[in-house]
Amino acid sequence: MKYGVLGTGMVGQALGTKLLKLGHEVMLGSRVQEHQGAQDWKAKSGGGAKIGDFRDAAVFGQILLNCTQGAITLDALRSIDRKHLAGKLLIDVANPLDFSRGNPPTLTICNTDSLGESIQREFTEAKVVKAFNTVNCQVMVDPGRVKGEHDIFICGNDSESKNAVKELLRDFGWKSIIDLGDITNARATEQLMPIWIRLWTQFGTADFINFKIVRN
Amino acid sequence: MKYGVLGTGMVGQALGTKLLKLGHEVMLGSRVQEHQGAQDWKAKSGGGAKIGDFRDAAVFGQILLNCTQGAITLDALRSIDRKHLAGKLLIDVANPLDFSRGNPPTLTICNTDSLGESIQREFTEAKVVKAFNTVNCQVMVDPGRVKGEHDIFICGNDSESKNAVKELLRDFGWKSIIDLGDITNARATEQLMPIWIRLWTQFGTADFINFKIVRN
Repeated sequence: MKYGVLGTGMVGQALGTKLLKLGHEVMLGSRVQEHQGAQDWKAKSGGGAKIGDFRDAAVFGQILLNCTQGAITLDALRSIDRKHLAGKLLIDVANPLDFSRGNPPTLTICNTDSLGESIQREFTEAKVVKAFNTVNCQVMVDPGRVKGEHDIFICGNDSESKNAVKELLRDFGWKSIIDLGDITNARATEQLMPIWIRLWTQFGTADFINFKIVRN
Repeated sequence: MKYGVLGTGMVGQALGTKLLKLGHEVMLGSRVQEHQGAQDWKAKSGGGAKIGDFRDAAVFGQILLNCTQGAITLDALRSIDRKHLAGKLLIDVANPLDFSRGNPPTLTICNTDSLGESIQREFTEAKVVKAFNTVNCQVMVDPGRVKGEHDIFICGNDSESKNAVKELLRDFGWKSIIDLGDITNARATEQLMPIWIRLWTQFGTADFINFKIVRN
């Protein structure tokens, strides 16, 4: 499968590398075509790794992953001709973190709306599935780093697209996937960020933390 | 110990009953002195169970529990002469749920503020500790209902008060207590409500759900 990854930060690189390891073709897209982080990633990733701008990655990918910073996600998507999003699964990994008030960050959008919903509302031609946004990128691609049982959450409006994301998650090693329902559930998973970030501060690392929903 | 419980709904009654079982004296306070729910609770609880209005419960209690609906909490506390709050531990159990937009509820306050912080900011004479607000009231008083390991979160500005709450939690049967830090962490635990409520809908019961923070 061809994956277009929007965003060349730690998250985009980690997911891109994992997808390459699984035998997929991956293009990382950034704001500009000649992005240093993307070039470094390509150099160390070897064959199969491609880079470009957001538009290039969207054209290339059969499946797209939004790994941009939440605050710039909508602008990044607006830089892409909508026809390149049409009918495609867009996995939204981003969180709408706002660092302008200092640390810990607040959310630019929450409670009565979410980033996942905003994307789906504006880009109706894409099939948005919110996933991965409640764990560190090292855990995203290697859930076994966290010992014991733990969960990953997904939500979205299209069942077939959610099934594709579940399959991808299982390929990544995820054993327990909780499908919360439609895309409005992005409010719930994005609002896990405040406690996740505070636990990170508390424990000194986010590499080995995740949520487990315990129930009988 | 004498406990004043503000609020006579399911949560206040469950906590009041548990405190009685542990040998404490408990007064449940409601908006009016002759509250039907409170009277029913008193009738079935036998000796030691007392009822009154918010002010009576605050005067009575050496430790206070806020079990009112979050939307009316500040007004409930304003109906009490501040001198009856002075120096007392006030355990804030409430969530600022807003049902005016339908189900699932949103939060009346979140992200850059929280109910716990609002209480502490306005009632500086009280020592506010946020606790219990992330689980169903049946789980609050009987954590063993949820099988396996799971966590309860507390936060507040005063260490001695948090130690008192930890002791109470252990008396209730809680084994894993995560102290998140100062009262600003109430933002984090109150923002667990959106996913908690959606999981409740998903699983059909909230009686047996809780969060476990998994880490190595």
